[in-house]
Amino acid sequence: MTIADVGEFGLISKVTARMAMGPTCLLGPGDDGAVVAASDNRVVVSTDVLVEGRHFRRDWSSAEDVGHRAAAANLADIAAMGATPTALVVGLCAPPELPVSWAEGLADGLAAEAALAGASVVGGDTVASPTLTIAVTALGDLRGADPVTRAGAKPGDRVAVAGRLGWSAAGYTVLSRGFRSPRALVDAHRRPIVPYHCGPVAARQGATAMIDVSDGLVADLGHLVDASDVAIDLHRTDFEVPAQMADAATALGVDPYAWVFGGGEDHALVATFPPGSVLTPDWRVVGEVAAGHGVTIDGRPYTAGPGGWDHFR
Amino acid sequence: MTIADVGEFGLISKVTARMAMGPTCLLGPGDDGAVVAASDNRVVVSTDVLVEGRHFRRDWSSAEDVGHRAAAANLADIAAMGATPTALVVGLCAPPELPVSWAEGLADGLAAEAALAGASVVGGDTVASPTLTIAVTALGDLRGADPVTRAGAKPGDRVAVAGRLGWSAAGYTVLSRGFRSPRALVDAHRRPIVPYHCGPVAARQGATAMIDVSDGLVADLGHLVDASDVAIDLHRTDFEVPAQMADAATALGVDPYAWVFGGGEDHALVATFPPGSVLTPDWRVVGEVAAGHGVTIDGRPYTAGPGGWDHFR
Repeated sequence: MTIADVGEFGLISKVTARMAMGPTCLLGPGDDGAVVAASDNRVVVSTDVLVEGRHFRRDWSSAEDVGHRAAAANLADIAAMGATPTALVVGLCAPPELPVSWAEGLADGLAAEAALAGASVVGGDTVASPTLTIAVTALGDLRGADPVTRAGAKPGDRVAVAGRLGWSAAGYTVLSRGFRSPRALVDAHRRPIVPYHCGPVAARQGATAMIDVSDGLVADLGHLVDASDVAIDLHRTDFEVPAQMADAATALGVDPYAWVFGGGEDHALVATFPPGSVLTPDWRVVGEVAAGHGVTIDGRPYTAGPGGWDHFR
Repeated sequence: MTIADVGEFGLISKVTARMAMGPTCLLGPGDDGAVVAASDNRVVVSTDVLVEGRHFRRDWSSAEDVGHRAAAANLADIAAMGATPTALVVGLCAPPELPVSWAEGLADGLAAEAALAGASVVGGDTVASPTLTIAVTALGDLRGADPVTRAGAKPGDRVAVAGRLGWSAAGYTVLSRGFRSPRALVDAHRRPIVPYHCGPVAARQGATAMIDVSDGLVADLGHLVDASDVAIDLHRTDFEVPAQMADAATALGVDPYAWVFGGGEDHALVATFPPGSVLTPDWRVVGEVAAGHGVTIDGRPYTAGPGGWDHFR
């Protein structure tokens, strides 16, 4: 059964029937708009779009996987502002021949990932398109905290990471070479594990700047140092290459640090903290902020591997 | 110059440079998320996607026109909840060969339409895609009012319309036949004129249910009567066919009431009000709510022309 068979409104009713609303959803799907709680008179909003062939492949990822990834990319942006995610809305552009079961799986993945972050899918839109496209917008609640932007890092701050680095990129390389294992890496590409709760925690711990690692650690820190007008030096010895990743890198003949420093889409959070601030164990210190410009590793510019990802090149 | 020439970040900086932030924007573009005011601890959210070839044609509409339409479709949903629009975020999926000037025109149209409704464009995402697609999410502020859903209409209520009906559909028919005039109709298709302020006013006037006319008056009232479990009868004599529309209908050999009752995308607001409520002059009473099911015109089912629009059929 395709979505052309059930039609737009049939699809919407099938998909929304699978969604559970959390406590921050005051009015759910089915009207012109949804109503979401915003406890401190402000709402954080972020949007990200995933396009088939560019951001996901249906032969590599299940519909549920794609839902998890699409939600995670947006929810991580909310966490990186220091906010707690509250809601997602989803625009689905789909070829009419798309199986209904795929759309249902996507909805399940979106809802499950949203629930991991404490949010729910409160609305959406479905339209016909030759290109399968998933446009997600996430909302979040700062709960009285100041937003943690990219612009507040100060010389002397420490740089710390919460979450995983390089796992998704390693999984992508594995899949690109035609393999389906190691499973842990492939699964990491299919469904990132995002430390959502670390964003609001960092805000309360006095983080001066924060960003989520979507384009690659060095590339995303590049955005942060540009916004803050500072330099960051990372310490290579503070980064671990897990055994599975090291083994895969050897087998595939690649430098695993290219995954760690250049790979995005794990949606780790990287933040800067003033000297003396007490960090929870989720945060690993990996470098420090100095006067100047740019990102270095042990004092030298990062060169191995792609520094990031430009969506039009 | 194409967007492949300037790259993702070049495009983002060119586009955001054109955006002015209104007072409801507390933190604008350039970070992981934006921060928007939500004065009464709630936010209304709605999303709509426009796909080239399906919802717009570049040979019929300028980039600015498409921006106006994409924003209007979303802002009207916010108004139809009784809320005042505060912000838009925009996901742009674009072929790399798209001229930068087109993206800039789109941004100008989005920003200008948002400003008409009192909102601003606070963020977005740009990705490469073979299919030009514009995914917009709008936020709004109820300012302490209850949301006006589709579900509150009661027998005895009056049905009233604010805004224009059939103009966009008439313009679409004109363009489909290869003509470029009457200009007023074509322009109405390119840039709807939406009575945004009438939504919050209706909420304060005690509207029991409201919806925006995006699929066609009869089709959208069909959603409202389903949600409210009532019937609505419209009075044909309460609908005007403006002279320009009547002339075009004669020239093209079509029934102008098919445009008025079946045409969407003018984003008029239609609402139900309790007996005795005092309406502002923007609202024209066109029918009444009764017990039962379905939408009739002068007691008879509506049959002429398409009843609405299903995006997958």
